[in-house]
Amino acid sequence: MSDDAFENSSVGVVETQYFTFAEPPNEMQLENGERLGPITLAYETFGVLNSERDNAILLCHALSGDAHVAGYHSQEDRKPGWWDFMVGSGRPFDTDKYFVICSNVIGGCKGSTGPSSVNPKTGKPYNLSFPVVTIGDMVKAQKSLIEHLGVKKLLSVSGGSMGGMQVLEWAIEFPLMVTSAIPIATTSRLNAQGIAFDEVGRQAIYADANWQKGEYSHTTRIPAEGLAVARMLAHITYLSEESMHEKFGRRLREKERYGYDFSTDFEVESYLRHQGESFIKRFDANTYLYISKAIDYFDLQRDYGSLENAFKNVPARFLVISFSSDWLFTTAQAKEIVRALKVNRKNVTFYEIPSPYGHDAFLMRNPAMEKMISDFLSHAYAERGNHAV
Amino acid sequence: MSDDAFENSSVGVVETQYFTFAEPPNEMQLENGERLGPITLAYETFGVLNSERDNAILLCHALSGDAHVAGYHSQEDRKPGWWDFMVGSGRPFDTDKYFVICSNVIGGCKGSTGPSSVNPKTGKPYNLSFPVVTIGDMVKAQKSLIEHLGVKKLLSVSGGSMGGMQVLEWAIEFPLMVTSAIPIATTSRLNAQGIAFDEVGRQAIYADANWQKGEYSHTTRIPAEGLAVARMLAHITYLSEESMHEKFGRRLREKERYGYDFSTDFEVESYLRHQGESFIKRFDANTYLYISKAIDYFDLQRDYGSLENAFKNVPARFLVISFSSDWLFTTAQAKEIVRALKVNRKNVTFYEIPSPYGHDAFLMRNPAMEKMISDFLSHAYAERGNHAV
Repeated sequence: MSDDAFENSSVGVVETQYFTFAEPPNEMQLENGERLGPITLAYETFGVLNSERDNAILLCHALSGDAHVAGYHSQEDRKPGWWDFMVGSGRPFDTDKYFVICSNVIGGCKGSTGPSSVNPKTGKPYNLSFPVVTIGDMVKAQKSLIEHLGVKKLLSVSGGSMGGMQVLEWAIEFPLMVTSAIPIATTSRLNAQGIAFDEVGRQAIYADANWQKGEYSHTTRIPAEGLAVARMLAHITYLSEESMHEKFGRRLREKERYGYDFSTDFEVESYLRHQGESFIKRFDANTYLYISKAIDYFDLQRDYGSLENAFKNVPARFLVISFSSDWLFTTAQAKEIVRALKVNRKNVTFYEIPSPYGHDAFLMRNPAMEKMISDFLSHAYAERGNHAV
Repeated sequence: MSDDAFENSSVGVVETQYFTFAEPPNEMQLENGERLGPITLAYETFGVLNSERDNAILLCHALSGDAHVAGYHSQEDRKPGWWDFMVGSGRPFDTDKYFVICSNVIGGCKGSTGPSSVNPKTGKPYNLSFPVVTIGDMVKAQKSLIEHLGVKKLLSVSGGSMGGMQVLEWAIEFPLMVTSAIPIATTSRLNAQGIAFDEVGRQAIYADANWQKGEYSHTTRIPAEGLAVARMLAHITYLSEESMHEKFGRRLREKERYGYDFSTDFEVESYLRHQGESFIKRFDANTYLYISKAIDYFDLQRDYGSLENAFKNVPARFLVISFSSDWLFTTAQAKEIVRALKVNRKNVTFYEIPSPYGHDAFLMRNPAMEKMISDFLSHAYAERGNHAV
């Protein structure tokens, strides 16, 4: 597709919508034993639900994502949604064929109920009194939204990173509602190194005096510096050493020689600082704590005894994708998922896409990824009647 | 060696000594153009300098190390020096044969002149007015100590990580003073990912309100939390994913189920927090900034045009060691050093030691490493007369 044609295939201006449910006394039961309600989910939809209501695709976002997966929020808006190149006319999640849904997770800070929301019981923000939610809770809330939209069965669920965890949870917890699943750059459980990086990020937030044990929302101070450190650290894990070398190497930032001070010397320092600074403008520190904790807790082996057991009664067909240079959610971890599906004789296709861009590769245009997903969905759509369960 | 025999080969109780030089107006010229003096170096020695004064070995410490490389500081002291198993009677740096020296680097906080030292011109601590020193400056200061001790030529210089950088600098900058060099788990220049991790560590310190732009020493507050975050982060890079998996996996800390709160859930979190907490008791935050900056600046390619050129006039024989699971200072980086030495037809032996313990492997007992170094030194000692330059 040429640049112009690509631009013309954009979904254009979209509006975020809101759905509120679990009103007391019908609060949603959470994994930690508590009940939460009312719950609002911010969501966006693209394309049209067909009369058979069987062309719906749910996209699940990663740690710092939101419901705004594609398009623009106004004519002037220059920054499209986080997976814009994947959603539109003729794009892999083809809005001419499919009804595409994306919602902000519970615990989030982009319109869905989370720690910064007002607790109707107290009239004050939840802050740390918000319950610690899990990937399972996120998916359970999404299920209410999907049903509200009149969808009984999803043609597909897809997402990368934490989005991929939600994909796995959907396929396992609501097997009759998922025709196909596309988990990307994800894992069935975070390894010790991943938990360690998350914990250091949280410690950076706790260490910020402006965090005030989470009670900052009514003050004039927010834990911006702690959150920026957490983001900078996480960002290193989203890139590969190879891509950092390519992009920055040891190049100096607007200077010929070392500064011999603690200002910025290297391009890579400047880039990271920019990543931290832009993140704090759009993200909430408490939500960062909650979502990173949900990621740490995700563990299908723990929940189901074994990964083989987790997939036992899952009818969905799978397309599992990993990226060669992703060292956070590795190909070896993707293969664990594939192996468990194969042991259960499930319909699974696996691709390790060669890419130098590390974990972030799933957020970047990649012809191989786009074609695989496009073809897989076309096939699932064509076959959808033949796989009734 | 049996455990008892090993214990008996300890160097026993040692005392840190101090050497002060570069008294004004003879301050030491630094790479950044400034002059520094007086300079005190804390150092320890083990064994006896022979009458030919040709059995001296200098050991160089890493970021968080100090002069206390072996033995104990008192009879009651239970924690030996950082490379204790390497230094003693019959150990690789055999104190029956060699005169072993180790000094705290300038910029350090363990007795050598650094940012927490009092500037005699002002009567106050230097803090951030301390000049940004380099690996070259550290080595230049060590040279004054070596000469003070009556040593004209070192039988060997050895060290891991930043210590290995000093080894390379010694061999190149003072070629006539170095008979042999043993750089371990090191690199000729940090890659972009390494600089990035260091910068996030520094940002964690800056973000601590108690850092007070470095002016905390005369207050009752120290940037303990920021320094702890920096240490926790760095510690992840010193381990391998494999060893973290082995050691911690996803095991919970003294609980059967998730806590669904922000206290400690996983063993690996508890371990990291302990690493942070014990570090802040023994290390200074400003020194952390200075030493990490010195590591970032080290770049032999930049200093000499190319690595080949850097080693052109180096007569020392080399033993280069890397560890298979070290992803901070990789085998690929060690091989760059080896290749540049070979291009210059230098006498170089290279070993990649199989180890699951990541970068920290050089601080842990390893029969292969111990034997290689022991044999290499015996050979260098036996041949020392034949290689006059």
